[in-house]
Amino acid sequence: MTPTEKDIYFMKKALELAKSRKGLTHPNPTVGCVIVKDGKIIAEGYHERAGMPHAEVVALEKAGKQAENSTVYVTLEPCSHYGRTPPCADALIRAKVKRVVIAVLDPNPLVSGKGAERLKQAGIEVSVGVLEEEAKELNEDFFTYITQKRPYITLKMAQSIDGRMALKSGQSKWITNQESRDFAHKLRSEATAVLIGINTLLRDDPQLTVRAFPWERQPIRIVLDPRLRIPLDSKLVKDKSASTIVITALEDKEKIENLQKEGVEVILAEAIDGKLSLKEVLRQLYFKEIMHLLVEGGSITITNFIKEELYDRLFVFVAPILIGEGLGIGHIGVEDLSQAKRHKLVNLYRFGDDIALEYRKL
Amino acid sequence: MTPTEKDIYFMKKALELAKSRKGLTHPNPTVGCVIVKDGKIIAEGYHERAGMPHAEVVALEKAGKQAENSTVYVTLEPCSHYGRTPPCADALIRAKVKRVVIAVLDPNPLVSGKGAERLKQAGIEVSVGVLEEEAKELNEDFFTYITQKRPYITLKMAQSIDGRMALKSGQSKWITNQESRDFAHKLRSEATAVLIGINTLLRDDPQLTVRAFPWERQPIRIVLDPRLRIPLDSKLVKDKSASTIVITALEDKEKIENLQKEGVEVILAEAIDGKLSLKEVLRQLYFKEIMHLLVEGGSITITNFIKEELYDRLFVFVAPILIGEGLGIGHIGVEDLSQAKRHKLVNLYRFGDDIALEYRKL
Repeated sequence: MTPTEKDIYFMKKALELAKSRKGLTHPNPTVGCVIVKDGKIIAEGYHERAGMPHAEVVALEKAGKQAENSTVYVTLEPCSHYGRTPPCADALIRAKVKRVVIAVLDPNPLVSGKGAERLKQAGIEVSVGVLEEEAKELNEDFFTYITQKRPYITLKMAQSIDGRMALKSGQSKWITNQESRDFAHKLRSEATAVLIGINTLLRDDPQLTVRAFPWERQPIRIVLDPRLRIPLDSKLVKDKSASTIVITALEDKEKIENLQKEGVEVILAEAIDGKLSLKEVLRQLYFKEIMHLLVEGGSITITNFIKEELYDRLFVFVAPILIGEGLGIGHIGVEDLSQAKRHKLVNLYRFGDDIALEYRKL
Repeated sequence: MTPTEKDIYFMKKALELAKSRKGLTHPNPTVGCVIVKDGKIIAEGYHERAGMPHAEVVALEKAGKQAENSTVYVTLEPCSHYGRTPPCADALIRAKVKRVVIAVLDPNPLVSGKGAERLKQAGIEVSVGVLEEEAKELNEDFFTYITQKRPYITLKMAQSIDGRMALKSGQSKWITNQESRDFAHKLRSEATAVLIGINTLLRDDPQLTVRAFPWERQPIRIVLDPRLRIPLDSKLVKDKSASTIVITALEDKEKIENLQKEGVEVILAEAIDGKLSLKEVLRQLYFKEIMHLLVEGGSITITNFIKEELYDRLFVFVAPILIGEGLGIGHIGVEDLSQAKRHKLVNLYRFGDDIALEYRKL
């Protein structure tokens, strides 16, 4: 199907609505919908957050009786099953819409195409694939989460020109400038959870919240802490503006109880040679419906994720400094250049003299 | 003086002429000139190469008698002294021009302003500073060469995202893509000489010439080779498309004679702990009129230049790969982030999935 200019125009509007909620609907995708009649938009809707009505239902409610004989543009296939809300396909059928234009089908192979099918069987004209790539990209994290059954993983590194994330002493505050750090808060805002290793916590005692701009939802903060060394007075324990999960292999009941008293959730996971199994960690996070995980460091944690190829996206902030010897990515098993892990450069940002490079793993 | 739009327009033309010879006039600056009468360009000129007439003289010759009462735009102050050619100021006076517009004064403090003064004393109206920054930037290398009495130094690094220039084994061919490497040839074309360390020669046996596009002048090839280990059958010895200089501390007469027989120039310099003194090397290169030196590697050589802060510009090519442990910038004396060497990001290039970052040392 080659989409008409009109279809593209209205689907763009629906995508804009979806974009406005990016990062706020976890573990659901962000979805937008516009209802068009006689060439005019008569109602708009988006999915506000998990547990709230889906975009189509919001738009249909606004349109009321006007929805009859309309064309509905929706950025993701309407659901055909009972989840937290009743099936949207049924709502569209009941509203007697004439045509439904879908950007992309549901990524879940168990239900993919079933919503569209249901609409067709009810006599509704269905078009699929208008701005499909854009729609997929917008919910890239959700698609990975559903199809790979693990969180979508973004690795964030802040480094010098020569690839050092910290001095040998561990000092890394602050390598990048204010503008870069504000942008890093945007990355946090799009993640369900932010993860660091215990060394970074002990050294920097970070807060890991979105503070550069007002934001409705704080990401969950996760610490990989095999030997449960997290101090009870660290910011991730004391600051209640976001919830904190500590993943450990040490069953220290007293310490665990003390952390729980502070509202911190403690998850036990197996460790091999004192190192938590990342696959096990991710399995646990998947069950906790963490759709998008942002790994913020430090160098050892980042290296472990890279070594096991457990990432989808790489954000590298480069400050205009040279450090020389220091902490960077460690051994990741590359013995020959042909084994070097390759990426696609997706975006390039400039923040004064800093830059940020956005890569996808190939 | 606030320049008029007309002055800016014609000076831009003169700068374009100068740009067309960028890299071809060493050790002279590149200079352009346009002669304007009744609002029209009646003659243009540029300095073709060292030993050839200066831009003003070329343009005056083309203009002939028409030059009388004209306005002359020149991107660098006309000389007032006898060098390889007679003073341009005198030629302008003889041609009875009415006004001379100069982008920037001569950087040499011994003669700076004297050309303009001479013109003024002859009753010619002189304006200085039209597009001064652009003119300085165009001849940035020449300005540094004259004022600092050493070559202008560009360091070129090709690295992975994580700042590795090679694997631990030394393997580095090829980290970057074809487009990046072609651009690196452009950098070579703008240098008087290209320098590498002996380890890079022994490992990669590079040719170091401009081959990505036709070019009138090949840079001189320089090897830092303290113990005179360069093989007589290496490309820098065998390939005669460019000249080669070996800088060594070892007075091995037989090896030196063998190299000289192949047309290779050997320069002796002092070494401390088996390492050539870079200051001494640069002094020698300055006396050889090497105005712009491009340092291409490897990691040890680059590290040494950085450590001694002997560079003006940094070009960093970043390939979209991760290497992990490997060769990068070594110890450069940064013990605290406040000591990290800071830079200004001047340009950002994208070559497919590669990027190139152009920094100036602050």
